[in-house]
Amino acid sequence: MAEELTAKSCASDGSGTFRIADAPTSFDIDRDRRPEVEAATERNLVKMGELQDRLYADGREGLVILFQAMDAAGKDSTIKRVMGAFNPQGVTVHSFKQPTSTELAHDYLWRAECAMPARGSIAVFNRSYYEDVLVARVHHLEEGYRMAARCTEDGADAFYRRRYRQIRDFEERGYEEGYRFVKVFLNVGLDEQKERFLERIDNPAKNWKFSAGDLAERKLWPAYMDAYERTINETASKHAPWYVIPADQKWVARYLVSWVVLKALKDMDPRYPEMPAEQKANLASCREQLMSE
Amino acid sequence: MAEELTAKSCASDGSGTFRIADAPTSFDIDRDRRPEVEAATERNLVKMGELQDRLYADGREGLVILFQAMDAAGKDSTIKRVMGAFNPQGVTVHSFKQPTSTELAHDYLWRAECAMPARGSIAVFNRSYYEDVLVARVHHLEEGYRMAARCTEDGADAFYRRRYRQIRDFEERGYEEGYRFVKVFLNVGLDEQKERFLERIDNPAKNWKFSAGDLAERKLWPAYMDAYERTINETASKHAPWYVIPADQKWVARYLVSWVVLKALKDMDPRYPEMPAEQKANLASCREQLMSE
Repeated sequence: MAEELTAKSCASDGSGTFRIADAPTSFDIDRDRRPEVEAATERNLVKMGELQDRLYADGREGLVILFQAMDAAGKDSTIKRVMGAFNPQGVTVHSFKQPTSTELAHDYLWRAECAMPARGSIAVFNRSYYEDVLVARVHHLEEGYRMAARCTEDGADAFYRRRYRQIRDFEERGYEEGYRFVKVFLNVGLDEQKERFLERIDNPAKNWKFSAGDLAERKLWPAYMDAYERTINETASKHAPWYVIPADQKWVARYLVSWVVLKALKDMDPRYPEMPAEQKANLASCREQLMSE
Repeated sequence: MAEELTAKSCASDGSGTFRIADAPTSFDIDRDRRPEVEAATERNLVKMGELQDRLYADGREGLVILFQAMDAAGKDSTIKRVMGAFNPQGVTVHSFKQPTSTELAHDYLWRAECAMPARGSIAVFNRSYYEDVLVARVHHLEEGYRMAARCTEDGADAFYRRRYRQIRDFEERGYEEGYRFVKVFLNVGLDEQKERFLERIDNPAKNWKFSAGDLAERKLWPAYMDAYERTINETASKHAPWYVIPADQKWVARYLVSWVVLKALKDMDPRYPEMPAEQKANLASCREQLMSE
């Protein structure tokens, strides 16, 4: 299952050039196979939960799983279904919404840094600091930032090049200090987004997920694809790879997300701490005390 | 006054090699001149307050002023006397004490990042993330860190070299995103520390500032001086210089600290925002409304 589906999923670790036009948004897989894929996902979720338990006990590494995507690509439902495998004690989901005035008055990485998990824990970022090189770049937000002149006077290209480097530095330091980053781009197609928007408009229970502004963003699709391609090429690395996951079929996307997260956890190889010999010897005496009560 | 006193104060911007043995801990200045020096300090404090007011209104840059020193060098009293010049609305002092278990479970820069000021504000760090390359190095704390094996397996030297680089990256990013760093090492002499410890022991009102453990640290003086020299050489830069300030005479040290902070504020050159023309035109109408009440 894994090989078959993951072969077409693009993982970028910075060693090659990623072209977003080559990244599929869907799979040519028979709908009849959905139960089989979902069963495989379930097996992954169970293993994820087991490894999280070890991670928590071990406490030597932390994990950041972040999701970026166009609207309606399935971030929320993927987080619900896949991250739901984790014991909530040990995982925190942070939604990066439009920055508050306090957040805007700080360095863009500030809110992410404050949200970094303790070692032994997992942070899920629903959107992330990557918004500051994606939506910011597409909308030329740097022109309106209240910052010292030196920060922006050499133009947008230099400004975002610095941010790419700053993000690489931030993630490299994280790796060196005991963290892993799994960066997921849920790659939904333009046609599928249209279908999902229509569903949000037609289904009253989903109206709250839609705003007229979403159509304005949809019109900027090519600019967003450029920004994603550039960002992925500039910030993919061996220790913090990007996974570009076809997102038109939610059941396939969920399988793939469970697969990349499980892969990261297996690489981390967390282990229950071994009790030191003298403490272990003491266990026998504790047993005796209990039995003689 | 400035030239006379500051000529012997070592500022390191990374362009040369700093030798701690060459850095004076006191000045050959007549005690009679203390009122003159204190008057100059007062003038600096007034200007600091004025510039802080502009900085707050301007909101385009933030300032971090951090203090490192051996025990009893005068960090607390310098902060009280010099940072007291600032309007407390716009400045926050963070004391970096022995890390809590939550702090230890995070990257060492985490608590500093969370304490970063909004642009327009000032953060004073009483000790700082530099403790993690100073006391940590002297006491080989890296050997006990609960971290993935990859973080420490190549030895202490490689470990701290990474941290120096991470700190440079962190401060560089800060500068690029609208912050300045003023890093002060209050350089007290071994003899003067002895006098101050004796005062803390003999004066009941100062007992609380002393602990027997301070003498154990004092015995590690040469190791600390090595760690400071190395740290200053590895992390001084044009945009985040170190100031090594002779601290045996508190009245001299206060003058010098006021001078370096004032210098940073002048370099930042904060300005009251100019009201846009259309809003300015509106002021006349607002005046009329008020007058016709």
